[in-house]
Amino acid sequence: MKKRYLMTPGPTPVPPEVLLSQAKPMIHHRTPEYTEIFVSVIEDLKHIFQTENDCFVFASSGTGAMEAAVANLFSPKDKVIVTNNGKFGDRLVNIAQIYGLEVKELKYEWDQVVNPQDIKGLLDQDKDIKGVLVVQSETSTGILNDVKAIGELVRDHPAVFVVDSITGLGAVEVKTDEWHLDVVMSGSQKGLMLPPGLACLSVSDKAWQKAKGSTLPKFYFSLEKAKKAFDKASPQNPFTPPVSLIVGLGEALKMMRQEGLDHIIRRHALLAEATRAGVEALGLELFAPPEGRGNAVTPVNVPDGVDGKRLVKIMSDEHGITIAGGQDHLKGKIFRVGHLGYVDKFDIITTLSGLEMTLAELGHPVGLGKGVAAAQKVFLDT
Amino acid sequence: MKKRYLMTPGPTPVPPEVLLSQAKPMIHHRTPEYTEIFVSVIEDLKHIFQTENDCFVFASSGTGAMEAAVANLFSPKDKVIVTNNGKFGDRLVNIAQIYGLEVKELKYEWDQVVNPQDIKGLLDQDKDIKGVLVVQSETSTGILNDVKAIGELVRDHPAVFVVDSITGLGAVEVKTDEWHLDVVMSGSQKGLMLPPGLACLSVSDKAWQKAKGSTLPKFYFSLEKAKKAFDKASPQNPFTPPVSLIVGLGEALKMMRQEGLDHIIRRHALLAEATRAGVEALGLELFAPPEGRGNAVTPVNVPDGVDGKRLVKIMSDEHGITIAGGQDHLKGKIFRVGHLGYVDKFDIITTLSGLEMTLAELGHPVGLGKGVAAAQKVFLDT
Repeated sequence: MKKRYLMTPGPTPVPPEVLLSQAKPMIHHRTPEYTEIFVSVIEDLKHIFQTENDCFVFASSGTGAMEAAVANLFSPKDKVIVTNNGKFGDRLVNIAQIYGLEVKELKYEWDQVVNPQDIKGLLDQDKDIKGVLVVQSETSTGILNDVKAIGELVRDHPAVFVVDSITGLGAVEVKTDEWHLDVVMSGSQKGLMLPPGLACLSVSDKAWQKAKGSTLPKFYFSLEKAKKAFDKASPQNPFTPPVSLIVGLGEALKMMRQEGLDHIIRRHALLAEATRAGVEALGLELFAPPEGRGNAVTPVNVPDGVDGKRLVKIMSDEHGITIAGGQDHLKGKIFRVGHLGYVDKFDIITTLSGLEMTLAELGHPVGLGKGVAAAQKVFLDT
Repeated sequence: MKKRYLMTPGPTPVPPEVLLSQAKPMIHHRTPEYTEIFVSVIEDLKHIFQTENDCFVFASSGTGAMEAAVANLFSPKDKVIVTNNGKFGDRLVNIAQIYGLEVKELKYEWDQVVNPQDIKGLLDQDKDIKGVLVVQSETSTGILNDVKAIGELVRDHPAVFVVDSITGLGAVEVKTDEWHLDVVMSGSQKGLMLPPGLACLSVSDKAWQKAKGSTLPKFYFSLEKAKKAFDKASPQNPFTPPVSLIVGLGEALKMMRQEGLDHIIRRHALLAEATRAGVEALGLELFAPPEGRGNAVTPVNVPDGVDGKRLVKIMSDEHGITIAGGQDHLKGKIFRVGHLGYVDKFDIITTLSGLEMTLAELGHPVGLGKGVAAAQKVFLDT
């Protein structure tokens, strides 16, 4: 018997209530019963996105939403600024290039935060820039980019501001309307506490204006089709929606409403703080700089002399705790503790405790219980 | 208390075993545990597709797979033949046009079957045709097009043969390799007995050759990325897969293996035959011509003097039986009984019995029990 603990930045643990809601008998999607669920899901999503903008869901991974944003808003040779300080920034660059956009890439080291002034510099020079694409919470490094500050800069420029908040939404503040975020994307297997398979996306009036002129091909991810289907007397999806995931999303959003968005964000901030305090008390070093530490995932440098891949493997095989390793050039160099969605303080205590035992097993000097104690202190002090 | 019966051509009823398998705790997709499930799902899919070709799954509706086929195989201005004798043939035309292909549309009335000789005529004239796109089983009308005969014609031509078998696979014979079907698409919420949200696709060597030259933009639906991820030492999906649906698919495919593919096809043929016998015994007229009647869905003309929309509504509201109405210009003119996936003889008896009562309630002369008796006779005679 070994209990499993899923502490990765996605998929995240799914509450039993949500898991079981997906086991309900299948219903047809062109029925009043489905429409009622769907309409309430969209209403609740708007609440979580903090927006009055249109919100849509697609059966796809988060990457589908990234592609949807690019294919719906732009046309070949459109100039866009894409920031890149991690794997998902890199993916945005990649998608924009594949669709034939002219990408002004702002590239940073993976342990650096995007500097809004760099964006300002490019925007000031060129009124012909059509979009600014930024990852808010970099899953690959946990780094949080300041989309509020960037939103202020893009606001008065003709460009639309596209934000990948796939790992952000539900863990960090995302004030879509207040911060002037024209398109915000999220995925189900993150802060929304669902299995993977759903992507969500909000679209502002400014983004709709831009979408009107887009000549890139799209069908399945067409926002226009999604809007047309939703605006019917009986709101629908343009194509058969993933009914069980939508039902699960309804259940998860109900739980989120009950907890309250403010409390959710505070809980995530606390989980992140306790995790940081715990690993630092063990003498480990945080990968992200203080100005860029988000609530969703905490990346930690693998200490000298420790095999990072073995650390992740022992955590999983011996202790049942799934954390994530580093990606691309950070493989073996960092490990990442995800703490978003259906996660509470004892998940952090468990993870830190497992980490202490793993480090001991790897022969790394560690004070057993020290990380746990530091996290407990954070929880007690709040 | 009212039991519900889902008798539509998708979503179809999901077996309780499959529903419950989706309620298992979430697992991470970059783990040996997931890979084991994924690899066995792909193996079992190949068995159902009757192919040695590569098979892939995407988080999307079936429409995503249609778009994937177009975006991966072709380039702008490529000449393709697309047959159109229903809503989904129409959608294939639409997608191909949106992607800038030069579409040679073979358009038929919705109650006509595609004539393979029409395709031969076009292929013989023009060696520069790059693809032939055909819907095998038209969800909108139940009509079955003869993809075996068409496969023979396309086989020796440079064009690739792309088959939408979204409502076909698991209900009618789909001999991918024997019939030279280069790309076959299916969706989860049909014969595969799953909730919607997954699309499947097989790709032949001939299709891979064509894909190499494709210049259309694609990222999320890139077959090349899917193949690269699957060919790793530890096979993966390129992007986070819809874990719970894949787990469910594993369970559904296990059930299909246990029943046996031959038995599955025979069962569907019998369910369709019994349905046809039942509605004809009630004096109703089948919409599809004898040469084009498939196993997945039976479309029936709404008799004169009966309100087709009310018929569908009474079936659902009074009797708990969800059938489908007509689509587009057939709205109110036909109704469709789906009988694919997790459906047995008593689902047909129930539906016919509900139909008899509904017709009586609508004031249409009907011999109560006559449709049921005709279906029983079919079941007894087999």
